[in-house]
Amino acid sequence: MNKITSIEATTIRDASRRISGFINHTPVLTSQTINRLFGSEVFLKCENFQKVGAFKARGATNAVLSLDKELLSHGVATHSSGNHAQALSWAASLVNSKAFIVMPVNSSKVKVAAVREYGGIITFCEPDLASRESTLMRILEQTGATEIHPYNNERIIAGQATAALELIEEVKDLDIVMAPVGGGGLLSGTSLAVHYFQPTGIVIAAEPEQANDAYLSFTQRKFIPSRNPETIADGLLTSLGSITFPIILNHVHQIVTVREESIVKSMRFLWERMKILVEPSSAVPFAALMEGKVDIAGKKVGIIISGGNVDLDHLPWTIHG
Amino acid sequence: MNKITSIEATTIRDASRRISGFINHTPVLTSQTINRLFGSEVFLKCENFQKVGAFKARGATNAVLSLDKELLSHGVATHSSGNHAQALSWAASLVNSKAFIVMPVNSSKVKVAAVREYGGIITFCEPDLASRESTLMRILEQTGATEIHPYNNERIIAGQATAALELIEEVKDLDIVMAPVGGGGLLSGTSLAVHYFQPTGIVIAAEPEQANDAYLSFTQRKFIPSRNPETIADGLLTSLGSITFPIILNHVHQIVTVREESIVKSMRFLWERMKILVEPSSAVPFAALMEGKVDIAGKKVGIIISGGNVDLDHLPWTIHG
Repeated sequence: MNKITSIEATTIRDASRRISGFINHTPVLTSQTINRLFGSEVFLKCENFQKVGAFKARGATNAVLSLDKELLSHGVATHSSGNHAQALSWAASLVNSKAFIVMPVNSSKVKVAAVREYGGIITFCEPDLASRESTLMRILEQTGATEIHPYNNERIIAGQATAALELIEEVKDLDIVMAPVGGGGLLSGTSLAVHYFQPTGIVIAAEPEQANDAYLSFTQRKFIPSRNPETIADGLLTSLGSITFPIILNHVHQIVTVREESIVKSMRFLWERMKILVEPSSAVPFAALMEGKVDIAGKKVGIIISGGNVDLDHLPWTIHG
Repeated sequence: MNKITSIEATTIRDASRRISGFINHTPVLTSQTINRLFGSEVFLKCENFQKVGAFKARGATNAVLSLDKELLSHGVATHSSGNHAQALSWAASLVNSKAFIVMPVNSSKVKVAAVREYGGIITFCEPDLASRESTLMRILEQTGATEIHPYNNERIIAGQATAALELIEEVKDLDIVMAPVGGGGLLSGTSLAVHYFQPTGIVIAAEPEQANDAYLSFTQRKFIPSRNPETIADGLLTSLGSITFPIILNHVHQIVTVREESIVKSMRFLWERMKILVEPSSAVPFAALMEGKVDIAGKKVGIIISGGNVDLDHLPWTIHG
């Protein structure tokens, strides 16, 4: 029994089996250019090719499929303006349930449209945490829906862990596994998967310098919330959670931070060289390599590419260029 | 013996074996969204993930590896401002040969840089066909290099055919195989591969309406050169060749044309839904589906996605938007 969490190796394997008929077993891509650049073997686990364009489909599907029929008849709910909103809407539709999504009124049209396309029922709120939470409370009371938190939820974490599980099963003997960190759902799941299935592996997370709450929390070993983060990596704005933080403290080996400029450059590099769309948050671990924050020479390195949802009308090199 | 060409089934298989250690066996991607949209099964053979970002690496590698040491010691040469220039430079570097590339002085910086990066030796010429050809003649005389034409060359065609061969081997019983058509190297190769390896399959090519010389040549069954084509699909500007045209006449079942607007929309659709970078030329067959020019309901359809080389500073929806 893991003392930090009730998520065991079998929990992750069960999640993998539960969701396998619904989600994509995403490809692992490699590039000789990248390998030569770092003198190592780099394996990109491409969750940008996942359903709804992000790893979030894994956790949401695992969480929804874990509910019984009675609960599902009332639907699920969350407040999110990002990939979790889309993922939960999509996952609920798989089982003919409903997803109630609380979104701030200033959410981008692209994101609102995406949630609607997947069948999510949107309630708008003011763009602050208090309004998000009170609106969600009201929705939960009115509908009897089950709240599915974007990351501070063991079903979600076990679902996100399945990406690293697939990577570890496909690429043997990884020395290092890297992931970005926002609320820590992907990172805590990844670190558990490495702990259970590739125990000699090192887990290194990367975070934007301008949203470095996980880095601070990790190095000071006490929870420090995210304060006015400003980063292009809009999937990484949130604070760690009470469930994700202890897992990260125990199973992650290092957290490094990267500059905004490196994130944009890395994103563009991955687009141009790999011919794949990755969102800014996904480029953060690669940016750590580009900045030389992590020495991977001679190592086998897996990187979770977390998603590929970008607004093609507002690309960072166009805005900043 | 095929009466139209000396390229036999074995020629294509030999090419596949010859180049297999150098080029990528590219993935075949599918999308439930696309399948639902058309009520069919669509398989994208992703040559945007090929070396140098385009199928051109196949033909160039086959052509270069077919030369003996004496010839290779003098190098290879071509006039091209596009993917063939990069592909030939890259292929020559594989065997420590030289690639002499004639490019018009107004070629984009991005393309010049790409050719140089792969080791190509550039000679600039005036931006017209006469200057391209006379400059190339001079280079051939000076260096003793072997000219490798971008498409009107059986080694090139046999190399390009290996993309369809891989697709046919991976996806059984394809009803339709689609490819874009410019000079016809990819299309003639694809049509031969279908003829030999999936003989019940139908080959349908797509071409920009504003560069419809292949469509006109095909329907009128006489060679009509490309005249002042203006299309965003800059890989499809050239006329058919004396070797590619007869193969196309005999082994292609239909050529359809598409509007510029559809090409841009299809390109963006593939980026957003598939999370892959495809260049405008690659979106042309998909645009034919979007325009309803080809009815694929209930069919298994393979599409060759020809390449992914785009200038991220000049995207069509930014320019036109």
